[in-house]
Amino acid sequence: MVSRNQESLDVLPGLPLPLTGETRVFAILGDPIAQAGSPALFNAEFRRRGLRCVLVPMHVRPRDLECVFRGLWAVSNLDGVVLTVPHKLNAVRLVDELGPAAHRMGAINAVRRLPDGRLTGENFDGAGFIDGLRARGHEMANQRVLVIGCGGAGSAVAFAVAEENPRALQLYDVDDNRAEDLASRVKAWRPTLDVSTGRRDPFGMDVVVNCTSLGMTADDELPVDVHRLQASALAVDIVLKPEITPFLFEAGALGCATHSGSYMLASQVDAICNFFGLGVGTPAKV
Amino acid sequence: MVSRNQESLDVLPGLPLPLTGETRVFAILGDPIAQAGSPALFNAEFRRRGLRCVLVPMHVRPRDLECVFRGLWAVSNLDGVVLTVPHKLNAVRLVDELGPAAHRMGAINAVRRLPDGRLTGENFDGAGFIDGLRARGHEMANQRVLVIGCGGAGSAVAFAVAEENPRALQLYDVDDNRAEDLASRVKAWRPTLDVSTGRRDPFGMDVVVNCTSLGMTADDELPVDVHRLQASALAVDIVLKPEITPFLFEAGALGCATHSGSYMLASQVDAICNFFGLGVGTPAKV
Repeated sequence: MVSRNQESLDVLPGLPLPLTGETRVFAILGDPIAQAGSPALFNAEFRRRGLRCVLVPMHVRPRDLECVFRGLWAVSNLDGVVLTVPHKLNAVRLVDELGPAAHRMGAINAVRRLPDGRLTGENFDGAGFIDGLRARGHEMANQRVLVIGCGGAGSAVAFAVAEENPRALQLYDVDDNRAEDLASRVKAWRPTLDVSTGRRDPFGMDVVVNCTSLGMTADDELPVDVHRLQASALAVDIVLKPEITPFLFEAGALGCATHSGSYMLASQVDAICNFFGLGVGTPAKV
Repeated sequence: MVSRNQESLDVLPGLPLPLTGETRVFAILGDPIAQAGSPALFNAEFRRRGLRCVLVPMHVRPRDLECVFRGLWAVSNLDGVVLTVPHKLNAVRLVDELGPAAHRMGAINAVRRLPDGRLTGENFDGAGFIDGLRARGHEMANQRVLVIGCGGAGSAVAFAVAEENPRALQLYDVDDNRAEDLASRVKAWRPTLDVSTGRRDPFGMDVVVNCTSLGMTADDELPVDVHRLQASALAVDIVLKPEITPFLFEAGALGCATHSGSYMLASQVDAICNFFGLGVGTPAKV
């Protein structure tokens, strides 16, 4: 029998306040979902704010996204949905309006109901990415940045980096068209920025960001040839589980600084709670 | 700062184990839902069993039931749905097969996925009703029982009481046809039982059960004229909130024994967890 005090409970990852019939519901939709860090982070944040809310993980296959989305928004006490891979792009057509970052990126990772019942989606990945780096002392200004993977997360990262005035932004995707498309959208928004595509070589780069899912599965290949990384480079991953991906492990072994996917997510939780309209509730101690 | 020990947390109403991306999800659907006792009971039971599961309340209007139901069952880590008023009858057509009690009553209050992906529904209200009474020393055998309200809950109660060999079973509903229909179904199942309809007068009854929602709202009328209750009668309510309904309060003031709706629900939690295929998990202490 372990004795523990109230304060330690208040910050326990994943623990909401006790549920009742009045609890407000939130969900994170992804495929896979087991690796998602949001249930741990959001429920702890709800508890910290004293809110009778819970966020549950939902494993939703791409073909089922629309059906699940429609069903969830017909639930009156469901107040918000968080979207993760592979739904960030496809969910855009299921909402009624987009926030500015979502509009730029063509991808959303959070949806809430407006007072008139319509749905609005916004994307906090980019802001979370920059905030997470900044909190650990890393700035993107004047850096040469290589982004591997130009899907939903890659788009968010590319636009967020572009806004920080990097020296150069290099975008790579196994699908050339996807990289080209993202590059032209970033260029349209920031015409003077040095944006290039087609090269995955990390040599000469100050920052290398893995925005693919490579590293989630044990026998995945590495996103780049780490032996071409310079020891002065910063290796960044957006994969959440494992916390130290093979890419980060190998880069770290070469002497590079590393930055895990968890920082990007943790930096978003507060912003998404505010987007959901959640303030601080009556402190409910349990 | 309050110190509390592990054991007290294990039985705290509504508190699940901390959520992660691997948490299995359950939901209770009702309209209204704020009064539902299931989130408190099921989450405490999940925690007691050491299971990474959570049950969330979902406020679903009748017109949205099918849309929500379809959406939820497309979620791969959703393993069970509990149904409460007013969905117990309408959900029958949304499942692929019915258990024996559900088949008898034409109403379900729990649904799970079969290994082949089909959905099966069963009704635990009747068994919970009888078990809840029995746990407090009340037997229905040889009693004259008046059931007010012949909807989903009333049907469950009527069939469950019929199985206990009461002296007489009197069914009342503001809709005569609904009472007649239930009476004829009970008679078809128990041909020798004394089943009557059309009278709401509690005089001469040993047990009076409110199976309507009267009492949930402050200015509801009473389900029966309590001044016609005999002091030897047992007054039973299935309304969960308030725990002491005006009907139970008035009956108690007249000297009648009373029995709250919470007992029926509490007696079902274990049975429904077993129906959901939940055993006892690896003890996860948090």
